[in-house]
Amino acid sequence: MMNETFCLALIQQSYTGSRETMIESTRKAIASSAAGTDLVLLQELHTTEYFCQSENEAFFDYALYFEDNVRRFSAIAKENAVVLVGSFFERRAAGLYHNTAVVFEKDGSVAGMYRKMHIPDDPGFYEKYYFAPGDLGFEPIATSVGKLGVLVCWDQWYPEAARLMALKGAEILLYPTAIGWFRGDSEDEKTRQLESWVAIQRAHAVANGIPVAACNRVGFEADGSGVLDGIDFWGNSFVFGAQGEPLGRLGTQSGILRAQISRSRSESVRRAWPFLRDRRIDAYNGLMQRFL
Amino acid sequence: MMNETFCLALIQQSYTGSRETMIESTRKAIASSAAGTDLVLLQELHTTEYFCQSENEAFFDYALYFEDNVRRFSAIAKENAVVLVGSFFERRAAGLYHNTAVVFEKDGSVAGMYRKMHIPDDPGFYEKYYFAPGDLGFEPIATSVGKLGVLVCWDQWYPEAARLMALKGAEILLYPTAIGWFRGDSEDEKTRQLESWVAIQRAHAVANGIPVAACNRVGFEADGSGVLDGIDFWGNSFVFGAQGEPLGRLGTQSGILRAQISRSRSESVRRAWPFLRDRRIDAYNGLMQRFL
Repeated sequence: MMNETFCLALIQQSYTGSRETMIESTRKAIASSAAGTDLVLLQELHTTEYFCQSENEAFFDYALYFEDNVRRFSAIAKENAVVLVGSFFERRAAGLYHNTAVVFEKDGSVAGMYRKMHIPDDPGFYEKYYFAPGDLGFEPIATSVGKLGVLVCWDQWYPEAARLMALKGAEILLYPTAIGWFRGDSEDEKTRQLESWVAIQRAHAVANGIPVAACNRVGFEADGSGVLDGIDFWGNSFVFGAQGEPLGRLGTQSGILRAQISRSRSESVRRAWPFLRDRRIDAYNGLMQRFL
Repeated sequence: MMNETFCLALIQQSYTGSRETMIESTRKAIASSAAGTDLVLLQELHTTEYFCQSENEAFFDYALYFEDNVRRFSAIAKENAVVLVGSFFERRAAGLYHNTAVVFEKDGSVAGMYRKMHIPDDPGFYEKYYFAPGDLGFEPIATSVGKLGVLVCWDQWYPEAARLMALKGAEILLYPTAIGWFRGDSEDEKTRQLESWVAIQRAHAVANGIPVAACNRVGFEADGSGVLDGIDFWGNSFVFGAQGEPLGRLGTQSGILRAQISRSRSESVRRAWPFLRDRRIDAYNGLMQRFL
């Protein structure tokens, strides 16, 4: 029997220079917030720097640690008795890699995986070079705290992904993410980017009547290739409830955000505004097209 | 050749007691803002009260004025040389009615119609009684200021509708709407409702890289049936730009909101964050289902 409420913790961190220091700082943060916490969400590719700032064959070596990462975060989930959403660079075969979220149960077992479906590619974010598009579809992952709609970063801009997770019974949307500013942009542009990022994810909660949380990377990481300066990851990890109401938000420093999630709230929100009832599924076939 | 920018005006009004007074006040408001204005958006069912607060056969009489409404707002569009988006109760045949937006060209000709596709039904909003679901699909309407993605009220909660309009080339999303609060609800609940309404429509701009405007009814209208008290229509008509940036918002009083819309902004916004490029059309077929 699941509890009516559960506690979600988001761990927003800066890159500290090595995989070992990242795993250690993450382990400590999880342990420090484990009391009373049921579910922990980590940021995208949290064991390394955001290496997609340049196209460099050497970075594929990070994916060789996938099995070890799974083993170590399995142990961390078990030690702290939390459901844990991690984000890793997966080597699936020679020349075939994914940006993969792994969900661990409180006993350390793997509850399920999600391979990032929408892959970006723009200056400083060369993900199409590293990651094959996911082929596991939009499938919620069943855990002891409920069915988790795990999506990753660029997926957050797609209402289709959120909707499909909701239609498949996801009870919450969770986004490990790594997004930030370029220093050359104006403050106005930075504000617009941040606000649009919050607004669209908040809207996924509203459209689907389920809570949404995004855990973002924070701090500056230089572009090792020297082509661009680097990225100021903007943090601002947040949680919105099933009606799109704010449940907490971090700033641009490392930190832990905890929020209580009510399981019955989706039921009451969807009764009041039953959007799923009125979808015009007879008129949506154009959504399967690139352009019309 | 279309101009790079155009001026949009939203006219937010209270119900003044009769169709004649509503047409007259709307005519005056349009005339007062016509100088420099290219496009005018009116609120949902602006010639009458929001009659859907109760199920009453007598209200179908309002739909008998559909042709007259079209004639008179055609004349208003022509007099003021504006593209005009009106919202009317349409009698199509005996026992077959629609909630229909009509777009008038600057010369008074009818540029196109949209019949509300998503029909709500909840206490105080008994629209399924009055309106058959639209059967014209999600088709932008070509005008001298661009292709208009006209949708109506409840449609605003559906990312699918916004997306389909964008995929069909809509350059802006326009929502005549009538939404408000019940006085029995707490201030916190009212805030959550209003914010969720703004957030989801702002997100349609973000997801699709096109501006969005909603023109809402304002003021209290009693429930003539006496079952409920009535509705405090919350106004707050707004415009967001193609990146989801705020371009203006009204409060809870009657008023006119004007905003300059840049046509080239969608081009630059979509180049920076090209969401349409990466849609997983191979994996969206579940969107055609009620539930999965």
